[in-house]
Amino acid sequence: MKRNPDFGFQSQGLWARLARGEVSSEQAVEHCIARYEDREQDVQAFAAFDAERALGEARARDRERELRGPRGPLHGLPFAVKDVIDTVDLPTQRGSPRYEGRRAEQDAACVRLLRQAGCVLLGKADTVEFAGIGRDPPTANPHDPKRTPGGSSAGSGAAVATGMAPMALGTQTGGSVIRPSSFCGVAGFKPTYGRVPVQGLWLHAPSLDTVGWMAEDVELLARTGETLNLGEWQAPEAGRSLRIGLYRTPYWPDAEPASRSAVETAADRLAASGHGVEEVEEIPGAENLNEWQDVIMHGEARISLMAEYGAGKQGLHEDIVEEVEVNRGITPRAMAGAYDGIGVLRPAFDQRLADYDAWLTASVPGEAIPRRDGNGEATFNRLFTALQLPCVTVPGLTGPAGLPVGVQFVGARFADMRVLAAGAMLEKLLVGD
Amino acid sequence: MKRNPDFGFQSQGLWARLARGEVSSEQAVEHCIARYEDREQDVQAFAAFDAERALGEARARDRERELRGPRGPLHGLPFAVKDVIDTVDLPTQRGSPRYEGRRAEQDAACVRLLRQAGCVLLGKADTVEFAGIGRDPPTANPHDPKRTPGGSSAGSGAAVATGMAPMALGTQTGGSVIRPSSFCGVAGFKPTYGRVPVQGLWLHAPSLDTVGWMAEDVELLARTGETLNLGEWQAPEAGRSLRIGLYRTPYWPDAEPASRSAVETAADRLAASGHGVEEVEEIPGAENLNEWQDVIMHGEARISLMAEYGAGKQGLHEDIVEEVEVNRGITPRAMAGAYDGIGVLRPAFDQRLADYDAWLTASVPGEAIPRRDGNGEATFNRLFTALQLPCVTVPGLTGPAGLPVGVQFVGARFADMRVLAAGAMLEKLLVGD
Repeated sequence: MKRNPDFGFQSQGLWARLARGEVSSEQAVEHCIARYEDREQDVQAFAAFDAERALGEARARDRERELRGPRGPLHGLPFAVKDVIDTVDLPTQRGSPRYEGRRAEQDAACVRLLRQAGCVLLGKADTVEFAGIGRDPPTANPHDPKRTPGGSSAGSGAAVATGMAPMALGTQTGGSVIRPSSFCGVAGFKPTYGRVPVQGLWLHAPSLDTVGWMAEDVELLARTGETLNLGEWQAPEAGRSLRIGLYRTPYWPDAEPASRSAVETAADRLAASGHGVEEVEEIPGAENLNEWQDVIMHGEARISLMAEYGAGKQGLHEDIVEEVEVNRGITPRAMAGAYDGIGVLRPAFDQRLADYDAWLTASVPGEAIPRRDGNGEATFNRLFTALQLPCVTVPGLTGPAGLPVGVQFVGARFADMRVLAAGAMLEKLLVGD
Repeated sequence: MKRNPDFGFQSQGLWARLARGEVSSEQAVEHCIARYEDREQDVQAFAAFDAERALGEARARDRERELRGPRGPLHGLPFAVKDVIDTVDLPTQRGSPRYEGRRAEQDAACVRLLRQAGCVLLGKADTVEFAGIGRDPPTANPHDPKRTPGGSSAGSGAAVATGMAPMALGTQTGGSVIRPSSFCGVAGFKPTYGRVPVQGLWLHAPSLDTVGWMAEDVELLARTGETLNLGEWQAPEAGRSLRIGLYRTPYWPDAEPASRSAVETAADRLAASGHGVEEVEEIPGAENLNEWQDVIMHGEARISLMAEYGAGKQGLHEDIVEEVEVNRGITPRAMAGAYDGIGVLRPAFDQRLADYDAWLTASVPGEAIPRRDGNGEATFNRLFTALQLPCVTVPGLTGPAGLPVGVQFVGARFADMRVLAAGAMLEKLLVGD
């Protein structure tokens, strides 16, 4: 697969051209609006989009750049925000009919940090209800309208894939950033848990919820991370040899041929380019991680949803009612067991990961599935979300149906910039320069 | 010390009389308003108080009770809310000049749950800036205006101690519920981490922040917990013998004579009443817990405060600026070490605690300190907050200056109702019926 022609002008990234001063912020926003007018009707990525407002904000950033220079490397960059993340200037409806037209009184902290750095708010990306369970957004996979874009950050993935936004914030509790990135064919990143502030987010399962983002390339993922204080971006040195672990996870039997082949292809290209690639031995206990993540996610979701449920069932999806009333029979003892089981494995993974630039694994089981079958599985994400590890998915490969299939790099906790540098290296091998 | 005469009518709890139908919700609120008019000028517990609004809400609850019966055991109960917890009907200023007059667009989930159960919002209790660091509230200790009421839930403790509110929500990140409860001489409870929803809270150090509450007696602590879905309250069986561990913690050398004597007195009375009290052997590694909690608290606070800092220094306390700029030199590696160190000890404490109804320990180093010296230390709280354990402080004893000194019961994770039942038993021994 070649670089997505939907990105930017010609085949170049919109952000790269903005950073080089080849386009103004206003022109960048105009480009996004043109893409929106072209694709939104079919893709339905946005829960709210205000072209005039975004243009005004972009013009202000352009004037400022002229007068005082850019605030930072992302000055003037338009971005979309998943609709469970508060914004003042656009409604935040949390994917819920109950919150139709809701206006937050302050931007979420992550949105504030990006706007403080000069980024321009473009629109709100649609999401599964409460980024958890319930109503699915109308968003279609940009590559095939009958397929899911992946959940829950559906709109964020579709907006970036169509070039309607060069970057979009999402959140991941199971696999809600990596999966839609893979299904939509874009670069996506979930940082180390706890490193991006959570004020102004709808928290669904607070011990798992992590702000992540999608972007037109890995460098923009990294520059966004830099702006959100994850560390300093250093482009990978040409000629440096990475040490990569090939980690199939205990869930490899669930990987379809599309993902198996994508991982093998990535491993082969890495090895052929002189990088060290070696199989990682399984870590005992890892086979429980996805189940533990499930117990925690649903156990905490019940707590988060209890006040919604207490306000009456009207405007609440039946799956949410069931989450509160039945909750899969999850007990406090099961939750404590899950927390502690994961707690023991975190340092074990960290220690093993310390020897590598990243571990290579599947991003998803396979290509995007038909929408009637759901949003796809977070099989290769749950464990890493539970372990709090930084994860980047790199696009460039496709499956038998011609749809995108990402491959994932996972790093040690807090090694966010290191795993992104490795991701940028892999991107060159899969997408080209 | 006898039961605080400020509570309710005569020596009886306001809530008990409300629950028995001896007073209406309107009368209960009128009582709180009378106490407010009497004490607020000296104590300054509230950041916002709207008597007329509360009376209107109380009358609505009274009418509802007449028509359809009570919604639950707390129907009509007036309560105060720490000012880092969002409310629609009253401003939420987060203890920060920057948020003067700020109005949230939705009640926090914990406030929604209480109001859904028929509780009546009375006012907003003042707090340390962002419940963390910076501006101290003007709140005085109700027993001695030159002393601190304890932080950061200063107003919550003082409001309950003066009878201005029979119950008040607070939050604990280090010792911000247990300490002010002890200094003010009221019952206070910090539940198991993660059991009370956090939507609508200012999150300062999200992996530690826990909603807790103070109340005029332990049963009301438990009934509030029941309303917040912590489990079913069962009054302690008369004659049942508790098994209590006497756990001095690695920080016992920091306990002043006032607290040592309070713990010994409690242990003696428990033993004299036929309860089993035995010294708990120290758990290896526990001596690091307070330092680890400190690393996590400040490391996460920096992340939470970054967007505030990015908005400019105006209206931000210099301690907050320092927290962001210097942050005590805390590194990601130190944070990972702290998370993992605590992660190993959580199941170890749980396992040992499973054999007991509760562990008895100090709530605080001693009596409330002079305000010029700060808000007091969270020495006997940090470790338990980090371990996510439910903690109840029981009043009734005093120190050499005649000021209240609480003693603390700590339970296993998720054993919230069990530790509260033990607390109710201890309350009978220290306060009387």
